[in-house]
Amino acid sequence: MFIVIFRATTRELDAEYSVTAARMRELAMQEFGCLDFHSVCEGREEISLSYWPDEASIRAWKNHPEHLLAQQRGRERWYESYSVEIAQVSRQYQVTGK
Amino acid sequence: MFIVIFRATTRELDAEYSVTAARMRELAMQEFGCLDFHSVCEGREEISLSYWPDEASIRAWKNHPEHLLAQQRGRERWYESYSVEIAQVSRQYQVTGK
Repeated sequence: MFIVIFRATTRELDAEYSVTAARMRELAMQEFGCLDFHSVCEGREEISLSYWPDEASIRAWKNHPEHLLAQQRGRERWYESYSVEIAQVSRQYQVTGK
Repeated sequence: MFIVIFRATTRELDAEYSVTAARMRELAMQEFGCLDFHSVCEGREEISLSYWPDEASIRAWKNHPEHLLAQQRGRERWYESYSVEIAQVSRQYQVTGK
């Protein structure tokens, strides 16, 4: 399994940002095989994690026309800067509190 | 490079949580070779990312007595549940907005 780790410093976010973010998540999960998606924002910091079965799915998702347009809007309007890491999971565990 | 992806659902957080979190970050970076650390909280969701040169450093860090105690307190007091993934970075890029 692979994880795409997206970390961003945001500018002012508008209504279109929320609509686009929700649509990108829907597209990833319904059409590109994304397994899971988690996004957390605090002030101007955003971390979004998406989980994928393989790198081919990530590439297909990255190059989808609607996603390319969202990426362009992100650079122009919503994000001051962002970084992306693609990483392969080697171990994973879950803990439930006592 | 490896990333430890920590995702948690928190309970009520207290002053000791903040002190412990800051100390764990300091310990990781100053004594165990952690390269970078980012934590974002929104409501009861927390995502913390730490970046490491290799898996041996992560294991050493996980088993440090002070960190083991913090993990125990986390399970007992601060976290309803959490998950951890250890993942190896295969690609990485940064984008500056226009």
